[in-house]
Amino acid sequence: MDRIEKRDGLIKMWMREAAGLLKASFHEKLEIQEKTSRTDLVTNMDKTIELFLYEKISAAFPDERIMGEETIGHDITDLKGIVWIVDPIDGTLNFIKQQSNFAIMIGVYENGEGRLGYIYDVMHDEMFWAIKGKGAFCNGKRLKKIEDIPLAEGLVAISHRLIAADEDEARKIGKASSGLRMVGSAGLETALVASGKLVAYIAPSLAPWDIAAGKIIAEEVGLVYRQLNGQSINLLKNNAVIVATPFTYQEIMANFSVGQL
Amino acid sequence: MDRIEKRDGLIKMWMREAAGLLKASFHEKLEIQEKTSRTDLVTNMDKTIELFLYEKISAAFPDERIMGEETIGHDITDLKGIVWIVDPIDGTLNFIKQQSNFAIMIGVYENGEGRLGYIYDVMHDEMFWAIKGKGAFCNGKRLKKIEDIPLAEGLVAISHRLIAADEDEARKIGKASSGLRMVGSAGLETALVASGKLVAYIAPSLAPWDIAAGKIIAEEVGLVYRQLNGQSINLLKNNAVIVATPFTYQEIMANFSVGQL
Repeated sequence: MDRIEKRDGLIKMWMREAAGLLKASFHEKLEIQEKTSRTDLVTNMDKTIELFLYEKISAAFPDERIMGEETIGHDITDLKGIVWIVDPIDGTLNFIKQQSNFAIMIGVYENGEGRLGYIYDVMHDEMFWAIKGKGAFCNGKRLKKIEDIPLAEGLVAISHRLIAADEDEARKIGKASSGLRMVGSAGLETALVASGKLVAYIAPSLAPWDIAAGKIIAEEVGLVYRQLNGQSINLLKNNAVIVATPFTYQEIMANFSVGQL
Repeated sequence: MDRIEKRDGLIKMWMREAAGLLKASFHEKLEIQEKTSRTDLVTNMDKTIELFLYEKISAAFPDERIMGEETIGHDITDLKGIVWIVDPIDGTLNFIKQQSNFAIMIGVYENGEGRLGYIYDVMHDEMFWAIKGKGAFCNGKRLKKIEDIPLAEGLVAISHRLIAADEDEARKIGKASSGLRMVGSAGLETALVASGKLVAYIAPSLAPWDIAAGKIIAEEVGLVYRQLNGQSINLLKNNAVIVATPFTYQEIMANFSVGQL
């Protein structure tokens, strides 16, 4: 293990501590604010968890930069050196409405290359994680390299934003698959593709913190993780994203006008 | 406890035994057949579990009738006396593609009235159950009476068949809600509404075995469970179904053309 891989135990410990704070918060009144719309919400707990992880990381690694969903590191314009990318609560709507189906996510990048990725499904106590080049895991169990399943034989998750927005292409993809599924957490939907339970996940606008951890895990099991226009992911902006088996990726790129989504 | 309520422990024991058979089957090759289309599948395990439950029920209660999804009791044309309604695997596609997110379901009806309802989420080991008039539960914990949340403040599950079928009304309901979610199991989606994690679930064609258990659980926590045209459920045919908080039900009936779905 190199100096970055050695951080694995520490990161998981911090994430489990953060999960404890989230679970405890269910007994208290949640403060909820709208960000850009009535379905884009933030709670006091998103901010609390981001600050908690920021303090842990910056105390242990004071020379490294941190980018978080809520407030931290939004001035970062390059990925030189080591950059931590943190989503304190992925699936905030689920956190508020379901007290389930949300994740804490951390990605560690070195000069733009993903090294460590963590998606923690708090309520089901499932930690999905990967060390670049060493494999991906769920809790103690190694995830298998994915089977290269075609679209017609697999289930697909498509973001609510695409389906509700009357995007015919998105619906056609659903129709060409075995069935649509929607969890409402980019991290958990990516983890489902990485576990072979979905063949693709498509979302029109994911931020760096929605992407960072999942991309490392997905690529480690042999999935394609790209922009919907076919380009590589750019972690300095929002991306329209597809995570898919190679076969399903090729089918979707060839048969559907996804570049415009 | 009357003579029917006393069966509660026995039914749960049978369902847990059936769940053990399902989990064990993951180590063996599944035999999969198409029923009406490439996404309407049945496996050898659907049939095995149905037969397993049929034999348990008919040995213990030889004078009672049983209706099951696959083959049993499809000649039943009335609900006189005691009728058991059994879904051996609800969410067969999920069972095949995800090895998760499926349920075993049993409803016990007496002269057409729901008495006992069970939805067992096998892989998450969550038994949702209700005894008519005595409350609904998840494992050992009583489910609270649902909060009467309006559509705009809740998440909604809509069947893949409606979304993929270009049903604008279905999409409009999704858009008017906080967000769409799709699990792919009528039982688990009903359990989510009963747990307060969704405000509504809508499906265009549910069979008696998709409905029987969930209706008892849903009504026990104060939800509306009706046909989309506003009529009561008819357990002798397929129904277009809505399960919702009373407020959301009224909103959807008033503002969307769901009668035609």
